[in-house]
Amino acid sequence: MSRIITIGREFGSGGRELGRRLAEELGYAYYDQEIVTEIAQRTALSEAYVRQILEHKPVTAFPIRIGRTFTTVVNSQQEQWNDIFKQQYQILRELADTADCVIVGRCADWMLRAYQPFRIFVYADMEHRMQRCRQKGAEHEAMTDKELRQHIQEVDKHRASYYGYCTDQKWGDKANYDLCINTGLESVKEIAHHVAQYLKAWR
Amino acid sequence: MSRIITIGREFGSGGRELGRRLAEELGYAYYDQEIVTEIAQRTALSEAYVRQILEHKPVTAFPIRIGRTFTTVVNSQQEQWNDIFKQQYQILRELADTADCVIVGRCADWMLRAYQPFRIFVYADMEHRMQRCRQKGAEHEAMTDKELRQHIQEVDKHRASYYGYCTDQKWGDKANYDLCINTGLESVKEIAHHVAQYLKAWR
Repeated sequence: MSRIITIGREFGSGGRELGRRLAEELGYAYYDQEIVTEIAQRTALSEAYVRQILEHKPVTAFPIRIGRTFTTVVNSQQEQWNDIFKQQYQILRELADTADCVIVGRCADWMLRAYQPFRIFVYADMEHRMQRCRQKGAEHEAMTDKELRQHIQEVDKHRASYYGYCTDQKWGDKANYDLCINTGLESVKEIAHHVAQYLKAWR
Repeated sequence: MSRIITIGREFGSGGRELGRRLAEELGYAYYDQEIVTEIAQRTALSEAYVRQILEHKPVTAFPIRIGRTFTTVVNSQQEQWNDIFKQQYQILRELADTADCVIVGRCADWMLRAYQPFRIFVYADMEHRMQRCRQKGAEHEAMTDKELRQHIQEVDKHRASYYGYCTDQKWGDKANYDLCINTGLESVKEIAHHVAQYLKAWR
């Protein structure tokens, strides 16, 4: 069976960098945005649209009374979300079947639980995450501290909500992970090196 | 400033073993029951009594109306708890001032926060913890699975309650730690070796 490493992460905590570095050190494949690209190709939807759909849980459809009968408004967003989610699940399994890999996000820790992945969660305090966002992303440069803090909190809220919807588990609850790393103390490069050494001994 | 490593742990997850092994690999002092022994010596109380007091938060004293005046029943248990807690705090600071060390439990991550300790939390699923208890402790041999599970849950409940009372923080919340390790996947010996390598690069 392939060795799968999954990475859940708070926004701005360096989860992607950790994933990339781990994959490099271990010689594993690395998947993150590539999954969105693949879904877009299979569904003929734009990457931006797929990303938007995947980042939000669908709005629930409620039954509506029409005349004397009950019917349900066909929620096309729900159906599209279901289709995209199925595609994502299929792609995750194909990747897991193909080679050892590191997968960032996508509820992969839960979706691929049958593969017994090594599940990492990365977090840091708000100050470090804001600092990291400022260093990394041009898109955050124009934001005030207050706006950036709100943005970070909103992204995490979406991730928690999406993860909860898809898995019925609590996002970031350490019980669902094998290693939870605070990236506020040490460089991600240094952390990746030591985690890679640890993972070389795994299985 | 000394390097302090603190270890919080779910009962049966191997926190003590990890602490001992880390101290050995790093050449640090190791403190666990030694702190109880020192408190007992300073207060002239028995170790068993000190341990019992420290493992339970004190019962709150309520004002009682006597005649027309209000008074408070002097809660000798509360006073004794306060004295022992102060002694423990004093000893923790003395140890931290003396040499690099690993401290297991005692809310040391919070009590010594001014020393910026490296804060580890160790956990595992119930099955692994029960297995570990059976392997390690003669006292658990006579227990049925149900009794052992209840015992583990009760000890953790006390730890969470005591930690919450002393620190006003949530016990086991990853935000309060730098590294949270699930010991269910790998031997504690192996984990300790890799964490020690990581800590050698710290600061």
